[in-house]
Amino acid sequence: MRRVAVIGVGVTKFGKHDRTSSELFAEAAADALADAGLPASAVQALYYGNVVGGETEHQLHTGPQAASILGIPGIPTTRFETACASSHAAFRHAVMEIAAGVSDVVLAGGAERVLNVPTAESTEYFAYASDAVWEQTLGLTFPGVFALIARAHMDKYGTTEEQMAAVAVKNHKHGTKNPKAQFQKEITVEQVLKSAYVADPLKLYDCCPFTDGGAAVVLASEEVARKHRKPVWVLASAAASDWMLMGDKRDLSRVPATERAAAAAYRQAGLSPQDVDVVELHDCFTIAEIIATEGLGLFEPGAGGLAAAKGWTSLGGKIPVNPSGGLKAKGHPIGATGAAQVAEIVTQLRGEAGPRQVEGARTGLAHTLGGNTATVLVSLFGRG
Amino acid sequence: MRRVAVIGVGVTKFGKHDRTSSELFAEAAADALADAGLPASAVQALYYGNVVGGETEHQLHTGPQAASILGIPGIPTTRFETACASSHAAFRHAVMEIAAGVSDVVLAGGAERVLNVPTAESTEYFAYASDAVWEQTLGLTFPGVFALIARAHMDKYGTTEEQMAAVAVKNHKHGTKNPKAQFQKEITVEQVLKSAYVADPLKLYDCCPFTDGGAAVVLASEEVARKHRKPVWVLASAAASDWMLMGDKRDLSRVPATERAAAAAYRQAGLSPQDVDVVELHDCFTIAEIIATEGLGLFEPGAGGLAAAKGWTSLGGKIPVNPSGGLKAKGHPIGATGAAQVAEIVTQLRGEAGPRQVEGARTGLAHTLGGNTATVLVSLFGRG
Repeated sequence: MRRVAVIGVGVTKFGKHDRTSSELFAEAAADALADAGLPASAVQALYYGNVVGGETEHQLHTGPQAASILGIPGIPTTRFETACASSHAAFRHAVMEIAAGVSDVVLAGGAERVLNVPTAESTEYFAYASDAVWEQTLGLTFPGVFALIARAHMDKYGTTEEQMAAVAVKNHKHGTKNPKAQFQKEITVEQVLKSAYVADPLKLYDCCPFTDGGAAVVLASEEVARKHRKPVWVLASAAASDWMLMGDKRDLSRVPATERAAAAAYRQAGLSPQDVDVVELHDCFTIAEIIATEGLGLFEPGAGGLAAAKGWTSLGGKIPVNPSGGLKAKGHPIGATGAAQVAEIVTQLRGEAGPRQVEGARTGLAHTLGGNTATVLVSLFGRG
Repeated sequence: MRRVAVIGVGVTKFGKHDRTSSELFAEAAADALADAGLPASAVQALYYGNVVGGETEHQLHTGPQAASILGIPGIPTTRFETACASSHAAFRHAVMEIAAGVSDVVLAGGAERVLNVPTAESTEYFAYASDAVWEQTLGLTFPGVFALIARAHMDKYGTTEEQMAAVAVKNHKHGTKNPKAQFQKEITVEQVLKSAYVADPLKLYDCCPFTDGGAAVVLASEEVARKHRKPVWVLASAAASDWMLMGDKRDLSRVPATERAAAAAYRQAGLSPQDVDVVELHDCFTIAEIIATEGLGLFEPGAGGLAAAKGWTSLGGKIPVNPSGGLKAKGHPIGATGAAQVAEIVTQLRGEAGPRQVEGARTGLAHTLGGNTATVLVSLFGRG
């Protein structure tokens, strides 16, 4: 297989937008192409992630739409949907296209628009990522799913609401250093603990927001990438799944799909968790970050809550997690999230992350989770 | 790149079903695995196409759901959506995964369920594949899109309603030879011409039906495929797009995405249109078949209508098109259609198509179109 690099990244401001998701993607894509120093005409294929566009925008078939807005109709385009991991899936398949020798320059990313519909509606549409027959009928939306998971982790390991709050506090602090983040204000543990319960034990500040936004990256073969000022190499990109139904999972305190995808990615790259300098991971709820740090092997199972509370995952800590602010503060435009995580890791490994830079970062990891923990993608990146 | 073969195919009965699309896919997948002589545990990745599941079933994130039903959670799963070409896109990307050396056995296919909602609703959901801002707001649903296309072809080449009717008559006749087809009765040119106008000049019998169904194929690397009784080789798999908006297209009498994808596929395979023995193509409306036969190079531009009326595309004709009955008679479960076309070509090249067998077929082509002609996939297959 051929080596693959990321040579351009672009992310829109995250928050409320009055444009279509395809337009948001195109804005991010134009920035990514400018960053790569390539014209749109250099793109040989478009890999696009979007989740609830059918529901919130009445828009499917977004691949050729995005290509049309970019002025490059003609190229192969594909839309990917694996719930919140959609644009990370698009990214991974784009890596395979280049690795297989089919193309040399591929544009991958995604976008989402949800703030044009009421919150109750978005919540329902997000729940389409769980089982329609057995779960949605119970009213099991995602705050409920992750509340069950949090309770299982608390029961098994003694994880506390204060430890979960520490994740929110850290990511909000990181978010103040990211001009693209939806939330740019610090919060305190007390504020988190006093916020309203959404699904016990998760409170308002344990939950990431609904967000509009787009993100894109330009991938290139080694030959093309060598001409770029700062190529960041894709060392691995792996995916895994798990039982769809919550009722089929044996231990809600763990996410087997994360453990499987991480094991595959470390094996592909010949690396171990100790080699990773910076991590962007899927903190849709604070408990999700805690369990992800365990599943990725950064901490032992059950130690993730303590690690967060001790500041080990803060900028300047042992292993900085979500320097961008994460989904919690940066925002979670679901179809764009995976690509935005990849963009942050690339920015970090280039040493261009400004006030949120992880000093000396050479190896980075992006982790994105889809739905009720049934899909996970993990990619590893290295500089130079 | 490594060679890739199809070693198993499975298609459900097409028509009305009272099961979810993931269950329909699983039925087809179980048949495809049995055909391949492999247990589900041999599958290393799942590539799944579905279009309007969010709308008709409130179900997204169908990759891990389908894997769960098959009892193989854990493997990477991805859902693809490129309008009606979704499972052909899933197939093409699965080919790349094996070609890249990532996996040796991949399951690809798709499913759709639309007959559980009223026809007016399905028509609206299908229209989500056109532009929400500029086209849906005009009431431009797909019968309207293809009526515009038909009128352009009639104006430019003198194509007649009788010639379009001949496509419907042929495909209904072929459908009587396919036990899986939704419609299994012959019709006459007179019946077509006397049927009600849906969108002038297209009448009821010029349109394919709404359909529930699933289709799946098992792809394998050369090493695995060599052990199979009758591997069918993927000689090429190509995709192309076009301007999304009807108003941006210069000549509605042609489908540039078909011409681009076909050119790429012929080039990959080192073949020309004259080498093809059997074709499954996207006849969502009779005019779509006529233009596809031209775009694929089987006939000169403008000669497709005459070719259909002369019987050149019938079983026993110069180049049999849609021996399965096509979308017109076999049915069009949109997320399953591309994979079902691939399954038919594989069955033909194995010489196992029974009463609809194209005698001596050695090279076959599958063509699937998405949306308002903005996405097309073309794959070429060879036996032995």
